[in-house]
Amino acid sequence: MARRKKVYEGKAKILYEGPEPGTLIQYFKDDSAPTVAAPATLEGKGVLNNRLSEFFMTGLNQIGVPTHFIRRINMREQLVRMAEIIPLEVVVRNFSAGPMTARLGIPEGTQLPRPIVEYYYKDERLNAPLVAEEHIVAFGWANQQDLDDIIALALRVNDFLSGVMMGVGIRLADFKIEVGRVWDGDYMRLIVADEISPDSCRLWDMRLPERPDGTLPDPQPMTDVYSELARRLGVMPSNVTHTTKPTLIN
Amino acid sequence: MARRKKVYEGKAKILYEGPEPGTLIQYFKDDSAPTVAAPATLEGKGVLNNRLSEFFMTGLNQIGVPTHFIRRINMREQLVRMAEIIPLEVVVRNFSAGPMTARLGIPEGTQLPRPIVEYYYKDERLNAPLVAEEHIVAFGWANQQDLDDIIALALRVNDFLSGVMMGVGIRLADFKIEVGRVWDGDYMRLIVADEISPDSCRLWDMRLPERPDGTLPDPQPMTDVYSELARRLGVMPSNVTHTTKPTLIN
Ligand SMILES: Nc1ncnc2c1ncn2[C@@H]1O[C@H](COP(=O)(O)OP(=O)(O)O)[C@@H](O)[C@H]1O
Ligand SMILES: Nc1ncnc2c1ncn2[C@@H]1O[C@H](COP(=O)(O)OP(=O)(O)O)[C@@H](O)[C@H]1O
Ligand SMILES: [Mg+2]
Ligand SMILES: [Mg+2]
Repeated sequence: MARRKKVYEGKAKILYEGPEPGTLIQYFKDDSAPTVAAPATLEGKGVLNNRLSEFFMTGLNQIGVPTHFIRRINMREQLVRMAEIIPLEVVVRNFSAGPMTARLGIPEGTQLPRPIVEYYYKDERLNAPLVAEEHIVAFGWANQQDLDDIIALALRVNDFLSGVMMGVGIRLADFKIEVGRVWDGDYMRLIVADEISPDSCRLWDMRLPERPDGTLPDPQPMTDVYSELARRLGVMPSNVTHTTKPTLIN
Repeated sequence: MARRKKVYEGKAKILYEGPEPGTLIQYFKDDSAPTVAAPATLEGKGVLNNRLSEFFMTGLNQIGVPTHFIRRINMREQLVRMAEIIPLEVVVRNFSAGPMTARLGIPEGTQLPRPIVEYYYKDERLNAPLVAEEHIVAFGWANQQDLDDIIALALRVNDFLSGVMMGVGIRLADFKIEVGRVWDGDYMRLIVADEISPDSCRLWDMRLPERPDGTLPDPQPMTDVYSELARRLGVMPSNVTHTTKPTLIN
């Protein structure tokens, strides 16, 4: 195979030029962004996230929520449609957790009155600060129409993903997506890009053993979340575990 | 317990007056409507549908889609909010099946370009005929605002339910809901009523054994759908199977 051109390397993924114009290859590494509550490197994590993101993006495509996903290529790579990423981390929260807990004084685990969509400016050096629609429109990262479309998209992803997780005994506390612009001729559309995986979702286990008094404990952060989620969804190929040796192609 | 007042008896359920004004008790029988592709009576079916409808309605309530479900009372009964049922069966189709196949000549199993919402007039003597918005508004069954709200509600249920099913290896080909009006003071809202269960969903299994040539067969109608769905979702209480003797309370 001819040496491919590396387009970008982030903490969790590498992007290569795709085989056709307008496509990219996303390579899933075993490293996580430092914001993810997981060890910096977990052997085999990239293999599972590649499968899991395939599973969620395929499901979204199927219900008519457009995503960048085209097809999985191998254990660590998938072909995606190249998008012009809007520099926002779009977060949907169903339960209070993480930064919201401290910032707004809402105890961890509190169900929110309705799903709340937040935007964080995607700039690592600034530590991805929370921004309001006002900032986004003023600085030209997106216009008001984009934002309305992003909210509709994010809420549909939330309905679907909450369903998937509930079906396998997991509470979706919050998650992050990235949204990008693609053009079909002159017609611009917004699509879900990047990845959907335990690195971008806060997942709480609802299948916990009863307490001695017979009551059920509150949902808790999943243990071994990558392989456990893959197992429950039946997406883990039988010959892959989270300890599979990564095949380094670069 | 004092003898309760029976409000209505249909093919699949009995409605009793609830303990408080504005509530009803829904009793799940083992019989199915003749439209359901299942034997007319299946021992224990009502027990499972009571659990399954609880599971789906609870999930919908949790993501902010309002439903009539208040709480499960026992193996066959649940407490619901009384609603003024809009006399429509609201059907969402993701894949061609059933009447659509013959009516529009679209082969069974074809994915539709997008989810299609259909209305059938809820009148058994007429065999629930397909109607258009035009009929519904003209005959005063619902107004245009109701219909816009019903579509939004139905599509949210579809996103969520498609997710739940996909998470456990099942394709949601289509489903039916009933929608009712409730009043909080002067404020009218539409809520999902009736039941969500295998009696109201067309479910195709995607977890099928490989064919001899290694390819995967097309999704097929689930076998033993009530207990298999309850098993996959983990909602089947360990002491209940579909052969549990019904406890007749009436
Ligand atoms: N379809 C796409 N088109 C273009 N860029 C994408 C697409 N999907 C994801 N990206 C970008 O690729 C990068 C993925 O690598 P990652 O390790 O997550 O990087 P980062 O550390 O910047 O988050 C991200 O910067 C993300 O915005
Ligand atoms: N929350 C509710 N309030 C009032 N009526 C309801 C509610 N939920 C369901 N129903 C009605 O209760 C009946 C349920 O019994 P079922 O056996 O399904 O009857 P049917 O044979 O008429 O479909 C249906 O007629 C349905 O419209
Ligand atoms: Mg990233
Ligand atoms: Mg009915």
